Amino acid sequence: MIEPAVLKGFRDSLPEEEIPKKRIIRKLEDVFSSYGFVPIDTPVLEYTEVLLGKGGGETDKQIFRFQDNGGRQVAMRFDLTVPFARFLALHHDKLGVPFKRYHINKVWRGENPQKGRYREFIQCDFDIVGPDNAEADYEILSMMHRSFSALGIDGYTFHMSHRALFSAFLSHIGIEDKAVDVLRTVDKMRKIGEDEVRKLLDEITGDSGKTDGIISFITAGEGRNFIETLEAIEKLSGGPTPHSERMRTIYSFLKEAGIASSFVFDPSITRGLDYYTGIVYETFLDKLPSLGSVCSGGRYNDLASLYTKEKLPGVGSSIGLDRLMAGLTELRSPLLESTSAADVLVIHREEDTAKAIKAAEELRSSGVRTDIYLQPDAKMKKIYSYAETRGIPYSLQIKDDGFILKDLRTREEKTCTAVGEILGVMDVD
Amino acid sequence: MIEPAVLKGFRDSLPEEEIPKKRIIRKLEDVFSSYGFVPIDTPVLEYTEVLLGKGGGETDKQIFRFQDNGGRQVAMRFDLTVPFARFLALHHDKLGVPFKRYHINKVWRGENPQKGRYREFIQCDFDIVGPDNAEADYEILSMMHRSFSALGIDGYTFHMSHRALFSAFLSHIGIEDKAVDVLRTVDKMRKIGEDEVRKLLDEITGDSGKTDGIISFITAGEGRNFIETLEAIEKLSGGPTPHSERMRTIYSFLKEAGIASSFVFDPSITRGLDYYTGIVYETFLDKLPSLGSVCSGGRYNDLASLYTKEKLPGVGSSIGLDRLMAGLTELRSPLLESTSAADVLVIHREEDTAKAIKAAEELRSSGVRTDIYLQPDAKMKKIYSYAETRGIPYSLQIKDDGFILKDLRTREEKTCTAVGEILGVMDVD
Repeated sequence: MIEPAVLKGFRDSLPEEEIPKKRIIRKLEDVFSSYGFVPIDTPVLEYTEVLLGKGGGETDKQIFRFQDNGGRQVAMRFDLTVPFARFLALHHDKLGVPFKRYHINKVWRGENPQKGRYREFIQCDFDIVGPDNAEADYEILSMMHRSFSALGIDGYTFHMSHRALFSAFLSHIGIEDKAVDVLRTVDKMRKIGEDEVRKLLDEITGDSGKTDGIISFITAGEGRNFIETLEAIEKLSGGPTPHSERMRTIYSFLKEAGIASSFVFDPSITRGLDYYTGIVYETFLDKLPSLGSVCSGGRYNDLASLYTKEKLPGVGSSIGLDRLMAGLTELRSPLLESTSAADVLVIHREEDTAKAIKAAEELRSSGVRTDIYLQPDAKMKKIYSYAETRGIPYSLQIKDDGFILKDLRTREEKTCTAVGEILGVMDVD
Repeated sequence: MIEPAVLKGFRDSLPEEEIPKKRIIRKLEDVFSSYGFVPIDTPVLEYTEVLLGKGGGETDKQIFRFQDNGGRQVAMRFDLTVPFARFLALHHDKLGVPFKRYHINKVWRGENPQKGRYREFIQCDFDIVGPDNAEADYEILSMMHRSFSALGIDGYTFHMSHRALFSAFLSHIGIEDKAVDVLRTVDKMRKIGEDEVRKLLDEITGDSGKTDGIISFITAGEGRNFIETLEAIEKLSGGPTPHSERMRTIYSFLKEAGIASSFVFDPSITRGLDYYTGIVYETFLDKLPSLGSVCSGGRYNDLASLYTKEKLPGVGSSIGLDRLMAGLTELRSPLLESTSAADVLVIHREEDTAKAIKAAEELRSSGVRTDIYLQPDAKMKKIYSYAETRGIPYSLQIKDDGFILKDLRTREEKTCTAVGEILGVMDVD
């Protein structure tokens, strides 16, 4: 006997989780389609060099990689961004730009599993490749907003900033050479708090005045609205720049669309050392800030430069579906309520099987999700318990030449002679 | 620069393929749900021992396997059946039986790539675990029929047989000890033809009379209807058995449901050396018999015995989605026609961006799939070519205080003053 174990950091998805997950993915796909975005998919396995580049680094240690039977160095994708860059390098001629795509699928990272973090998880990426303008930036933000709205999530805020604004500020105070260290430190704000960040910045800048400046910059959004924050940032950085103008334009579009109230200007958002070059954003559930960002992204000037000379600027975002679902579970979101596995359970005695089959086929053809209890000899208690576990609201018992439809929630019964009659009585979606 | 290559036997899925694939999957999921089947998912990676058992064999060589960073022997799943058996062993207590599940996802096999065969492909499995009776057998067959019907496939036939009928026949002619070799040979019938099979059988049985008998058995369906074939088989095997009675009952259910004409009794179907113990079936597209079976399966008495002492009989089927899509492509099925990426493309000049954004948001809220052309300074020719490539049927140009809606197929134009007006004019799904 072999132990039926799953690997550390992996898990099965039982129907109670898989049903809402599929529902959420469908809703997101419908939103993305409503913007003219199209789906793509890429192989789970790629050449290791394609995924990791020539170098190594942190990701290198976390990746599932091996030599295949043909002697190739291969690896399982650890995100959907790198495969998309490779995909673009290969297909951009055929696809043309602007290209608007989404990709929802699994990725793998050999991290040490923590609460809500697994070695296999689903990402949900959407990007616009081609135009580098406020229109494209806005469109991604608008789609993020519509996605969260379509999911019926109660309370979410998009925190935005712009990479180049921070660089301009660091130049203005004369420490652009320390940008990488400062960026890395500032990105820890949410995790380690202002006091710790201040200490680390003092070590980097060696000048508590500059540290104060950096802290003023990253906290400039506190107590200010979007435009006030933008103006404060401009003042700290020595005046308006094309980047701050871009932010202003994006904000005017958000206002025009009536969704500006969900967006805050938060200069503490930097997205660490990622490849972003323009706007960056993270998304927090208002009631669960500790969950971390459930949808993040930004603008990158040149995603596919590792594989092609073609310049392919883009802007995109990624929803961490598993983290979002963990959050929705904690918030007891109705979105995760398990739905019934069927609308009605057909119950019959052995000798009525033919009638039961006919009724079930007729119901299904009328759009009613119909389960048949497949063991006619079972005890009624067992059958009702089956229906209850699956949340099936009605039973339909074959009785002589007719049917008894029972509402299992109210125990009300109604005798019918034809399937057509049942349809009018049942109260299902 | 790194070459943006994909691995041998792997491929990207571009929107023109991914859109119909997603459409097909949604239709199948809707059919499965209408029978009360629920979705599950399992990890892509499992312990190698869990997937391969203690032994090795043919599958062993084709599997993608490696040692992970924690020193575990792991492998990527090569089908959805073995992970389901492991899943059942782990969760059957919680899930209870009857359990009706479906699972649509990728599997990997390091086979040598051939036309239409890849190292990464999608399987679509559905099974009923618990009852071992004609009702459950019928339900899987009914769901297969409804799936193919829902996909609008023109011409398909389900070829059925029963494993135990063949065994009973071999016993009856006294060569049950050669069952494995005979089975393996008969399974090649479609590939190598009757003459070759006869030669091989002669070698196995050493008795041309017995070979004649086997050939009569496996060709008993030719020129006979379902019941006639069943009777011929019974005669060849020394009379009715519980297994032939099961076939008779299943057929009566198929008739009752009005779908019997899509099913033929084909005793040549044996499913090789698989783990089946009851009915077995394969599905062929009438116009493309050479494609091979696009949906196969059968009844197994004890799927999870490798992992648990619990007896878990089941019946199931698996649609080879990639092979089915290859067939539909060859048949130029309307199912694969690329749909438009959007219903309407909003076109605007730089100064009208705000108006364009507002109109697009309004259209999306009204359920119209709306793309905005994101580079207002582009040439009209480029914009129209973008719409054409994506099959977008309408353009909406912002003009002063109104809009010009253009049907890009007929070039008809209509001036409108409000978004509401456009909705009535457009002819989209």
